[in-house]
Amino acid sequence: MFIGEVIGTVVATRKTDNMQSLPLRLVRRLATNNAPTAGYVVAVDVVGADEGERVLIASGSSARQTHLTDARPVDAIIMAIVDHWQVDNRTIYSKSALQQDETVG
Amino acid sequence: MFIGEVIGTVVATRKTDNMQSLPLRLVRRLATNNAPTAGYVVAVDVVGADEGERVLIASGSSARQTHLTDARPVDAIIMAIVDHWQVDNRTIYSKSALQQDETVG
Amino acid sequence: MFIGEVIGTVVATRKTDNMQSLPLRLVRRLATNNAPTAGYVVAVDVVGADEGERVLIASGSSARQTHLTDARPVDAIIMAIVDHWQVDNRTIYSKSALQQDETVG
Amino acid sequence: MFIGEVIGTVVATRKTDNMQSLPLRLVRRLATNNAPTAGYVVAVDVVGADEGERVLIASGSSARQTHLTDARPVDAIIMAIVDHWQVDNRTIYSKSALQQDETVG
Amino acid sequence: MFIGEVIGTVVATRKTDNMQSLPLRLVRRLATNNAPTAGYVVAVDVVGADEGERVLIASGSSARQTHLTDARPVDAIIMAIVDHWQVDNRTIYSKSALQQDETVG
Repeated sequence: MFIGEVIGTVVATRKTDNMQSLPLRLVRRLATNNAPTAGYVVAVDVVGADEGERVLIASGSSARQTHLTDARPVDAIIMAIVDHWQVDNRTIYSKSALQQDETVG
Repeated sequence: MFIGEVIGTVVATRKTDNMQSLPLRLVRRLATNNAPTAGYVVAVDVVGADEGERVLIASGSSARQTHLTDARPVDAIIMAIVDHWQVDNRTIYSKSALQQDETVG
Repeated sequence: MFIGEVIGTVVATRKTDNMQSLPLRLVRRLATNNAPTAGYVVAVDVVGADEGERVLIASGSSARQTHLTDARPVDAIIMAIVDHWQVDNRTIYSKSALQQDETVG
Repeated sequence: MFIGEVIGTVVATRKTDNMQSLPLRLVRRLATNNAPTAGYVVAVDVVGADEGERVLIASGSSARQTHLTDARPVDAIIMAIVDHWQVDNRTIYSKSALQQDETVG
Repeated sequence: MFIGEVIGTVVATRKTDNMQSLPLRLVRRLATNNAPTAGYVVAVDVVGADEGERVLIASGSSARQTHLTDARPVDAIIMAIVDHWQVDNRTIYSKSALQQDETVG
């Protein structure tokens, strides 16, 4: 998996039959220090992520291992919403810290 | 999936037996801001996309999860035609806006 | 799939048991404008391509969806020989045009 | 597989149902000379690796070939903890040598 | 597949249960002209390759299509030892030529 940031939404009316009603999100690939990269993926959101949230992307056949995506032509899903991550015992990102900032600020 | 632009067609008479009559389209990989990149893929078109349209490409074993491509040596399909997409709540591309422009212009 | 040019042959006597007698071809990855790139793949040839021909390469598990390669440790096949392709309605490559040139020239 | 270094942990409370309780580790991709690269992966740890350890990462559908990850949307696992590796008959990394250094130092 | 050179060995005592006793080799990715690249892979050796030999690497689910690797978390195998290869009808590498040189030299 890799860490991404939900940056947008893709709308597509004409799809293969078995893809109707699956939400498609635009996800920017992040480095381990939370910096944006040029990479991105369009992923099916199976956990209900909001814009700006950090998420984990599973790719390939692994993206079909959920009830929503089983046997569908899906090669990427948002499989988790990230609460926080550490590198070398230092917190790089924390969702709750961000939310407290917003409440206080 | 990634966002692509249909830029051409590939014709191949001699193919593996189970690939006869599947339409092959040349699709250029786009960045999230709609800019072209050097990347491309030859994909089986299962939705009927026109040249110039923005589409979503599914790759790998996921490309075989449709009636047309099941059990065939296909590693990329056009699985949707994009209507529009947003990044940071800004519309980057809208097919209907383009069509109105063409009608007016 | 991607477009490649058959540039050579690989011979390997010692192989896994189920790979005996499958022809292995060296295929250079081409850009959409027919220019060579640094990329290449060693692919099993299931259609009988000649050196210099443009071909389509299918990768991953999709490379096993033929009678010759089913259940074998093959991750790339030549699945088609390209006759011609267009980009923006312009013919980039045409096999028959080349053959006429050779006959005339 | 590739060689990685465990550099951190990712915590995600909201996950697909079948991903609960699987430990997620941040793993930096290493070159063959043990140098860090910009690449990384978030992998499920099925062997119990500690931070700083060198590990092997298996990707794609192969990441689902363990009891813990079978039929789950997992595209990368830590499948082994590296004791040592050699390149051109020279030891590049040895876990036990490091541990002796720590004991002595 | 791609062409690689066996440059070393990786030893890992603690592995997933079903990976015990499979030999792990460090393989450097080569260009078509036999030049080394920065790329590498750790692959299970199912054919018994020696250090310095040129080999073919199969990746992804294709790496599990052998008796040794079936249903194991393996994403790369050495599936053949290369005898020789040609590009544009010129021999780039020949194992037997090297051996004769060694005998004579």
